[in-house]
Amino acid sequence: MSVPIILGSSSPRRQYLMQQAGFEFTIHKPDVDENFPDDMPVHNVAKYLAEKKANALQPFIVNHIVVTADTVVIVDKNILNKPADFNEAFDMLQMLSGRTHHVRTGVCITFQKVKVLFDDVTVVTFSKLTKKEIEYYIHQHKPFDKAGAYGAQDFIGMIAIEKIEGSYFNVMGLPIHKVYQQIKLLDNKFESTRSKFD
Amino acid sequence: MSVPIILGSSSPRRQYLMQQAGFEFTIHKPDVDENFPDDMPVHNVAKYLAEKKANALQPFIVNHIVVTADTVVIVDKNILNKPADFNEAFDMLQMLSGRTHHVRTGVCITFQKVKVLFDDVTVVTFSKLTKKEIEYYIHQHKPFDKAGAYGAQDFIGMIAIEKIEGSYFNVMGLPIHKVYQQIKLLDNKFESTRSKFD
Repeated sequence: MSVPIILGSSSPRRQYLMQQAGFEFTIHKPDVDENFPDDMPVHNVAKYLAEKKANALQPFIVNHIVVTADTVVIVDKNILNKPADFNEAFDMLQMLSGRTHHVRTGVCITFQKVKVLFDDVTVVTFSKLTKKEIEYYIHQHKPFDKAGAYGAQDFIGMIAIEKIEGSYFNVMGLPIHKVYQQIKLLDNKFESTRSKFD
Repeated sequence: MSVPIILGSSSPRRQYLMQQAGFEFTIHKPDVDENFPDDMPVHNVAKYLAEKKANALQPFIVNHIVVTADTVVIVDKNILNKPADFNEAFDMLQMLSGRTHHVRTGVCITFQKVKVLFDDVTVVTFSKLTKKEIEYYIHQHKPFDKAGAYGAQDFIGMIAIEKIEGSYFNVMGLPIHKVYQQIKLLDNKFESTRSKFD
């Protein structure tokens, strides 16, 4: 048997990455708020929220490998969330313009009594953006569902990202190379056959 | 006026990146062989081939900004070309497995008497791949049009790329951030208006 997978995320980027990596899965969006304790160190937040989402999908872990994730953009030890409106998106992108920030994705993979919690960080350097480039992007792409107000695969990613250090897919929302390795381990452990890969 | 652009490449990845970056363009595939002098240092080859492609599109540069590019994969100072068949693809991917290589894309942007020639290099680290993963990838994705026998956006990119240093889009075939900056400069120089961006 091969353990069926649930992806606990409504992000189309995460769904795309899981598909590209060859996984079949169903989607269940965890019903959680994305709050975290005020005094939590910023580098723990992504993992904390990934685990919170996993906990909300607890009933499924008997029969499914459950994958949840959360991505945060960190600049000056502050977390940039999803922008509420045009002005907030504009301020975020102006803050990222011409400098380096961190993208951290926490992942929680759960099956029965096994819980694997890890994260991955990518260092992203933006070139300087003009006011018009930022305005054009927000109007055209409406990045209100994206932490830090940008998608690496969008117009702004094309023109702004000078370089990254780490995984590009982690910036998109999932460190798929690590997810793949962990699911492979977990699947082998339970003697299932993912014969096409192993 | 805004100068019309010709992309001198049949690569769907390059077309996608140019589109995402907001450019409108037409496509003319340059009719050139991809040979280069035996004694050429490997780090010059991508630029050399990009310029060779530009020369083949010489008649267009009076009225168009012409963009050409060439991407090479370099490992141990050897260039990996497009694989001829399954066995060559297999050997290339086994060579890349579990180690670091360089992807270098040369770009030539030409308009009238201006020629801008540059390149960009990305350092890519692969995790160890199993024989079955490599075989599965080649059978499913047939990477015979890809230097080094892989596409970063394919299955193999998802599972193999542990980290990169540099531009991800450069690995896909075009350092789009640099192309964008150069076309913007060139377009401004000729007093055209790309008003949505500037």
